[in-house]
Parts: sequence; C-alpha cells; structure tokens
Amino acid sequence: MSNLGADASPRDSGPVVGPNGLEVPARTLPTPSTVSVQMQKMIAAPLRPSWRQRPRNVEEWKSFVDAAAAVAVARIPGLCERLGVRFEPMTLDGVRGFRVTPNTVTTENRDRCLLHLHGGCYVLNPGEAGLSEAILMAGFGRFTVISIDYRMPPEAYFPCALDDAATAWKALSRTTDPRKLGVFGTSAGGALTLSLVLRAKRDGLPIPAAIASGTPMSDVTKTGDTFHTNEFVDGVLVSREGFCDAATLFYANGHDLADPWLSPVYGDLSGFPPTILTTGTRDLLLSNTVRVHRKLRQAGVEASLHVYEAQSHAQYLFDETAPETAEAFGEIASFFDRHLAG
Amino acid sequence: MSNLGADASPRDSGPVVGPNGLEVPARTLPTPSTVSVQMQKMIAAPLRPSWRQRPRNVEEWKSFVDAAAAVAVARIPGLCERLGVRFEPMTLDGVRGFRVTPNTVTTENRDRCLLHLHGGCYVLNPGEAGLSEAILMAGFGRFTVISIDYRMPPEAYFPCALDDAATAWKALSRTTDPRKLGVFGTSAGGALTLSLVLRAKRDGLPIPAAIASGTPMSDVTKTGDTFHTNEFVDGVLVSREGFCDAATLFYANGHDLADPWLSPVYGDLSGFPPTILTTGTRDLLLSNTVRVHRKLRQAGVEASLHVYEAQSHAQYLFDETAPETAEAFGEIASFFDRHLAG
Repeated sequence: MSNLGADASPRDSGPVVGPNGLEVPARTLPTPSTVSVQMQKMIAAPLRPSWRQRPRNVEEWKSFVDAAAAVAVARIPGLCERLGVRFEPMTLDGVRGFRVTPNTVTTENRDRCLLHLHGGCYVLNPGEAGLSEAILMAGFGRFTVISIDYRMPPEAYFPCALDDAATAWKALSRTTDPRKLGVFGTSAGGALTLSLVLRAKRDGLPIPAAIASGTPMSDVTKTGDTFHTNEFVDGVLVSREGFCDAATLFYANGHDLADPWLSPVYGDLSGFPPTILTTGTRDLLLSNTVRVHRKLRQAGVEASLHVYEAQSHAQYLFDETAPETAEAFGEIASFFDRHLAG
Repeated sequence: MSNLGADASPRDSGPVVGPNGLEVPARTLPTPSTVSVQMQKMIAAPLRPSWRQRPRNVEEWKSFVDAAAAVAVARIPGLCERLGVRFEPMTLDGVRGFRVTPNTVTTENRDRCLLHLHGGCYVLNPGEAGLSEAILMAGFGRFTVISIDYRMPPEAYFPCALDDAATAWKALSRTTDPRKLGVFGTSAGGALTLSLVLRAKRDGLPIPAAIASGTPMSDVTKTGDTFHTNEFVDGVLVSREGFCDAATLFYANGHDLADPWLSPVYGDLSGFPPTILTTGTRDLLLSNTVRVHRKLRQAGVEASLHVYEAQSHAQYLFDETAPETAEAFGEIASFFDRHLAG
C-alpha cells in the first residue's frame, strides 16, 4: 500500500506526536453555519478583551470588578422588561439576595422555587450584576428564583461563597419543602451548585430535588483535556492561564485548589439529586462538564448532558434573543419540572 | 484599566479573529491524566497512519480494505474468548449477517435482540471484520445481537447499505416483537442506525424500541464546527479531508451528500424512539453527534448524550480492557434495558 502515500493527501503537513504530546498546527476556524445568526455574531466577535488580565492587588481587582459590574447592571432593566420579570432585594438568614419573579407563574410552579448561584470566577457580578441568569430562568422557565449575592473578595475569601450558599439553602429549605426546590448556576455558580450538595451531605441538610450545573468550574487545578484542546478556541475564557484562573487564586487565598469545595469533580458525588449539565463544543470547560457527568453516572445518579454546537464558555447566557438561549433554558426548566414536586 | 494590559499576561501571543475566522496558534496537547492508562496509551500513540490515504481506483480500494480487514479479523477470536461470546453466519431475507450470542443471556434479555450496523466509512469491515462492536455489546450487555454484513463498494453503492439494513430490519421485526428490538452502530453504523429509522418511517415499518447511535457520520457534507476545531486533534479520523471522506464519496457514487439517507441530521427526526448518543471531546464528529442530539430534543424525542473525556472518534471500541469501553457499553446496555420490553 506504499503507493497510497503522502502524494494522495490533500494536506501538506499534518500533526505529529512529539515528546510532549500531540503537536497541532495553527488553524483558522471559520464561523460555523450550524448555529443561529445571534450565535454566529458572538463567535465572529473579537475575543473577550479582558481574558488576559490578571490584576495584581486589591485596588486593581476592585477597579476591574466595578467596571464589569457597571456594564452588567446596565443590562438588567431591559432584560427584565423583555422577559417579563421583576426582582427585589431580600435576605435569607442574613445572606444577601434577590427574589426574582416572573410576571406570570405557572400553576405547577406556584409553590416551587429555585436557588440561583451566579457565575463570575468568584470575584465578578456583585449585587444586581449577578442577576442575568436568574432573570433568564424566571423568564423562560416561569419559576420564582432566589439569587444569592454571596460574599466575594476582598470582602471575604474561600469558603465565603459556599458558606453563604449553605446558609441560604438551610433557611430556604426550612420554609419550603425541599422536594419543591432546585439549585442552579453557571461557571463558578455551576461549581457552587455542586459544592453546595457536597456541603448539604456533610452537614445533614436536605438535598434539593434537582440541580442544574452549567459549564461548572469543577476542576480549578486546570486538569482536563479541553483546557488544552479548546485553549484559544474558546472566545470567552480563551486560556487556562487567563483572568478566571487569576480570579480563582484570589478567591482561594492559598487554599488547596483540589479541595472538593473548590473542585467538586474530586468530591463523592453519590447521593446527588438528578442533575442537568450544559456546555458547548468550544467551551474551555467542556472536560470539566463531561467529567462531572461521568462521575455522576458512575455514582448511579440520573444526569443529563447537553452540549451546544460551537458555543464557548457560558454563551447560552449572553443573548436572550438567541434561539439557543431559549433552548438551553427550556431544557433546564423542563428538567426541573420533571423532578420537582408540584 | 489600561494598567492591566498585555504585560500582565502569561502568553506572548494569543488568537485573533481574522477575515476568515478565528486564527488559532499551533499548540502541543499533552496526554491527559484524566483517562485510564489504556486510553492514555491510545491518545499518546501515533495518529492512525492511514488517515491521509485516498485510494484512486477500485483496485486500490480493494487492496486497502482487504489489508484492514485482515487485521480486524485477526482480533475477533481473542475478543470472543475474553468476552464469552460466540457467533455464526446467518441471513435475514437474503441479507448476510451473523448471530452473535453471549455465553449467558440474562433472563430479561432472553427474548430481546439488537440489530447491529457496523462502522467503517461505508467501505471497511466486510464479513467478520465488522463484528467487534457486536461482540462488545453481546459481551458487556449480555444481549443477543444480529450484525448485518451489508453490501459495500465495489459490490454495490448507495443506498445498498441502507437497503440491506431495511430488509434485515423488516425480516427481524416480523419474527420478533419490535418492542423487544433495538438497533445500534458507530460511525457509518451510527448514521445507518438513524437512517434506518427514517426509512422505517417512510416505508411504514415498525420503529425499534430504542436505538444507540455512536459518533454518527450524520453530516457527510463536512458541515459542523468540530470538523474544524478537532481537525488534527482527533487521532483516528484526523481531518475532514482524510480517508473517511474519500470512502464516503466512493460509496455515495455521485449521490447528493445532503440526502438524509446519507446525512441523517437533515432528516425529520420526529417520532424517533429513545436514542442514546456516544462521542468524545476530541472526536472530529463531536458536532455531528451533538447536532443530532439537539435535533432529537427539538423534536421532543428522549435522547441521552454521553461525551467521554479526550476520546477521538470511536475509541470506546478499540480496547476491551479500557474501563471507558465497559462504561460506554454499560450505559448503552442500561439504556436498552430501560426501553426494551422484557
């Protein structure tokens, strides 16, 4: 078969396996035709300019977080208006939060409630800036949502976010039948959703009826194959050495990154409630997501994985007019509807 | 925030969005620690040497197919021995096949049967060479399997494989209650599994109780984002311009590649039975798989997606001692068990 050699190949060069692994040549990735025009626009946009930033002191962190929050907060009133959702501040046993309510709640959802833990690498999205995902869920899913405004650096450090989530969960599950409660979040919020169940198991708290973990930061040791294969392919996180890594180190404050409360993929996932997981094929955290899926399945947990074509990290949150956003929240809402008591 | 600029970045260069898309720099992908040692060995191995080969005439095709078949056939007796499986040739209404039987069939599976459609880009794996996946399913799942040795070029061309699958399905569903029947296959076999349901719908044949489509060649027009993002990352198919593309063109014999019988992602997937889909994060056909998953979900079909860490195309078939192989077949067998009548 030597006559079927390199001259039959359409490519001049291909990858080789070198001493450090598979050497992949430079490539140009066209914007795919297999997603909506809104998603195409996101994919064709310049990479998130902040991905390289690694603030070096508290003042630089504060300046970065404030600027990002101002942009996020400005988006909230229009989002509420377009999705028919309102919100008001509240506290749960002293933990700050917001009650996010759709203008019309379905009959089945009248006594149900979802606890929301926002994303942002444990440093971004304080206050109202953390509400967009909660508003999307309330709007698309017609659920009442309580979104926790957990403490973040420099106000407090690990495990403050998990402590606040646990306090809020304990308070909420005292006043509402936990069979009618779910928990959800994306990125850091997706990891906190998983860690909260680990914490509830340890502390003997009720377990939620179902959880939704979106592209979770389930392994902040940066272990997992797509930290490499999707580096420079994911347009949001871009690199495992980028902003989100710096932010996690700021939050962890010297704590062991492999602790399951920071990297829940290393926790004991037995006894977890039904779990829906969401990610995309370009997501830097695709491995983080599928590894949790496999560990849940190995533990005998009902777990439903949804991987969206060509999406980078958490892009199902970015444009409420994209059909993929309605689709992702439709899947999650339907999953909660199947698993929460009415 | 201009003081948080490039000097804070750990990278000298990063990707940019150029006129043709996202320009991704060359990278070296280390062998991941997040998979079994067997899978690590597969990932660290040289790329499949034949990926570039595009035979140019019938003699070259025959020589290539025969050589590959000899290697595959040599593996069969040991595989049967280790998994406790035996097989014998049979025909179904004139279509060639094999009955593959585990030494012990579970009570629930006594009257059940799975129809198997092998992979190999519509040209590879004639005769016993196509049996390995059927043996894995019989061994790990304790199901009786009938594996179809469908016609391939140069004996016949499109739609010969689908014709044979449909003839065999019609015959099998006459003698066995279709509620006790499933259909499965990987790659070309994964696409044939989907196309067979499209064909059954058109012809008014019974619909199987459940199907398992592994990393299906669901879009042979080479549309889909991971044809680009996983090019040179997938160690099995390697490139969308490789062997499998040439083989598909040989089989299609001039037929429109977007025909749903060749690219079932373009078919009407409503009324499909519960479907389990399997792929890996490095798979060139990851998009082919998740796009089918999304289309099934949009059509209201129960569809369960399983994406394995760091696996290239169909690697869950390659080493029966890898725990990922047992895991993948365990998931599929359990899915059939839930959906097939006893």
